[in-house]
Amino acid sequence: MESDTGRFETYSDGVFAIAATLLVLSFMVTTGPDAPPLGHQLLHLWPSYLAYATSFLTIGIIWMNHHYCVETIARADRTLMFLNLLLLLTVAFLPFPTRLVADYLQKDGEQAAVYVYDATFVVMAVIYNVWWRYASDGRRLIGEAVPDSALRAINRAFAPGIPMYVIAFLVAIWSPLASVGINLAIAVFYLPSAALFDR
Amino acid sequence: MESDTGRFETYSDGVFAIAATLLVLSFMVTTGPDAPPLGHQLLHLWPSYLAYATSFLTIGIIWMNHHYCVETIARADRTLMFLNLLLLLTVAFLPFPTRLVADYLQKDGEQAAVYVYDATFVVMAVIYNVWWRYASDGRRLIGEAVPDSALRAINRAFAPGIPMYVIAFLVAIWSPLASVGINLAIAVFYLPSAALFDR
Amino acid sequence: MESDTGRFETYSDGVFAIAATLLVLSFMVTTGPDAPPLGHQLLHLWPSYLAYATSFLTIGIIWMNHHYCVETIARADRTLMFLNLLLLLTVAFLPFPTRLVADYLQKDGEQAAVYVYDATFVVMAVIYNVWWRYASDGRRLIGEAVPDSALRAINRAFAPGIPMYVIAFLVAIWSPLASVGINLAIAVFYLPSAALFDR
Amino acid sequence: MESDTGRFETYSDGVFAIAATLLVLSFMVTTGPDAPPLGHQLLHLWPSYLAYATSFLTIGIIWMNHHYCVETIARADRTLMFLNLLLLLTVAFLPFPTRLVADYLQKDGEQAAVYVYDATFVVMAVIYNVWWRYASDGRRLIGEAVPDSALRAINRAFAPGIPMYVIAFLVAIWSPLASVGINLAIAVFYLPSAALFDR
Repeated sequence: MESDTGRFETYSDGVFAIAATLLVLSFMVTTGPDAPPLGHQLLHLWPSYLAYATSFLTIGIIWMNHHYCVETIARADRTLMFLNLLLLLTVAFLPFPTRLVADYLQKDGEQAAVYVYDATFVVMAVIYNVWWRYASDGRRLIGEAVPDSALRAINRAFAPGIPMYVIAFLVAIWSPLASVGINLAIAVFYLPSAALFDR
Repeated sequence: MESDTGRFETYSDGVFAIAATLLVLSFMVTTGPDAPPLGHQLLHLWPSYLAYATSFLTIGIIWMNHHYCVETIARADRTLMFLNLLLLLTVAFLPFPTRLVADYLQKDGEQAAVYVYDATFVVMAVIYNVWWRYASDGRRLIGEAVPDSALRAINRAFAPGIPMYVIAFLVAIWSPLASVGINLAIAVFYLPSAALFDR
Repeated sequence: MESDTGRFETYSDGVFAIAATLLVLSFMVTTGPDAPPLGHQLLHLWPSYLAYATSFLTIGIIWMNHHYCVETIARADRTLMFLNLLLLLTVAFLPFPTRLVADYLQKDGEQAAVYVYDATFVVMAVIYNVWWRYASDGRRLIGEAVPDSALRAINRAFAPGIPMYVIAFLVAIWSPLASVGINLAIAVFYLPSAALFDR
Repeated sequence: MESDTGRFETYSDGVFAIAATLLVLSFMVTTGPDAPPLGHQLLHLWPSYLAYATSFLTIGIIWMNHHYCVETIARADRTLMFLNLLLLLTVAFLPFPTRLVADYLQKDGEQAAVYVYDATFVVMAVIYNVWWRYASDGRRLIGEAVPDSALRAINRAFAPGIPMYVIAFLVAIWSPLASVGINLAIAVFYLPSAALFDR
């Protein structure tokens, strides 16, 4: 029998997968008589490759963590579902700042592009935390069979999320490129270890 | 065992999630020698943010209500499935008027853009009502275990939908911006309470 | 337990739903100093509305029929799966000719646009028939519990498909607009009745 | 009960289906006073048709093989899930080089376009092999009921993948068109037979 939370899990899975796959629309080359040779353009697209990999891995890992959290939740109320929609709204927005980083990194406007990109990650981390705190505080919506140790493990995994994304944001004041690099590092090194912290 | 209604529920879920995620394509910035600085452009994109949030939340909440209604339906006939396709056709259309609002709000043509946007919501509400009335009148397709009180609760939740979207449409004659604001307010305040009216 | 055919049904469902939702990208308005007023443009977009509705309903109904056929199939072999991929390849292609019809109907090039559109439907109908004949001839892959009468009903439903789309194609020689109208009529009148022929 | 691998299978299925369906965005025609007649343009789009069919069939068949491999895997650990994300990152990237091949084949820049296209297939084949070796070496994550013969069959099916894509890459030095043709041939002739090698 489908649990009450299956109700928003399928929808969430769909939004995660579609948002990740739409990221490919960040890649653009120009044609026309004045366009540089394609090989040249493809090498100079490296900000696009960087932004694509960072966003794709981040969405993938948020999806994994989301799935893991939802497994501990026994029932969904309207507040949880609304918070979940806000989380999805932020995830589905990510292809836009990703395209900004792809288009503007190392060019005029890179700072504004990376601020929006980093701010999206900060907002995502905040909403994700609120969503999880709402579900887990006092075990409000948690299934009876879930041990407290599992919740504590998820809490520990969540704890550094917001500070790390805030640091990435602050680094953008000094170097937008380094800031995107930090976001990639978070996706590659931190999040995978956190995702399955409890196992 | 999959119920007879699982038949169109997966397909509907897919269309809802994809339409919501395609909304991000509403965000556009311009490049080139004459383009304003990116930071400036991003601040002036607020109609895009407004239109995106309004449409994303509305689709999310229509999806939740759809799911809730389908749970009461025991079997699907060809009329219900055709009405369901018409509902999806309207939902999948929404990214276009959303982009219109994003591009034209506070500019020449904003009235036409918001008329199309509001009209889409009115048509969506009408088809949704027809779909539900068809399923529920005389309990035509309703499962035996579903109490009449659940149907009455859904009916009460549906009742203000069309009038509210018609009012939003009429307000656009006077102020397109206020009209979009009303649509956002409907998504944030009215629909969530209606969605789970019965619980 | 998931049947052997669940193997390609989820994938097919995804492709059908995504192709249908991508159709919205057919709608385009132009901006700039020389652009006609938006209201004017939106009225002159009627070929887009027509093409969108025709393709959306056709995909939706093909999906329903596909689902219905798959329910009678007990196991999938590699030929069936390859034929299924070819069918999906054609369905996923449909957003392109739909955009052609949206852009060119009633303009120079409408004949070429509608030829491609109609040819896509003809090819889709042919592949669909080959797919079904392969599965059902001599009950090759059909489940034991499925009565012959169900197969005959599906065969009867399939029979007029290719001729109707060929007629629509031929009508395009004389009138591209009438040809698209016939495709819409097929989706609205013929296919829904065929989909559930057996019930 | 959902197996532990259902965890990333739904997400993977979504990414495969969406990436395949986004390929249709490779088709582009130009309008305006200087544009060639549409019929002429549509005939000269054959590199788009070729690239679309090649990529669509390849994704479809990779999806089938993926599904088949996952059925032998009993549990997922964090390394497998990260490798799976890398595989999806490559699959979701494919619409970009596909559009490059569609736009540049038989024109200036075709070599660069096909190099990127072929390199994507090589990287995909390498990650796919690493993913499968990680799961199957010493039966690390394989279910107990899966016979060794099934694993050997999959290993045999995987073996020629990387060499074939490397050959396609090398052929592009001499003829980009022939290289794309080889990729199509791999999708049509080799992969389907490999997919179900064990049956």
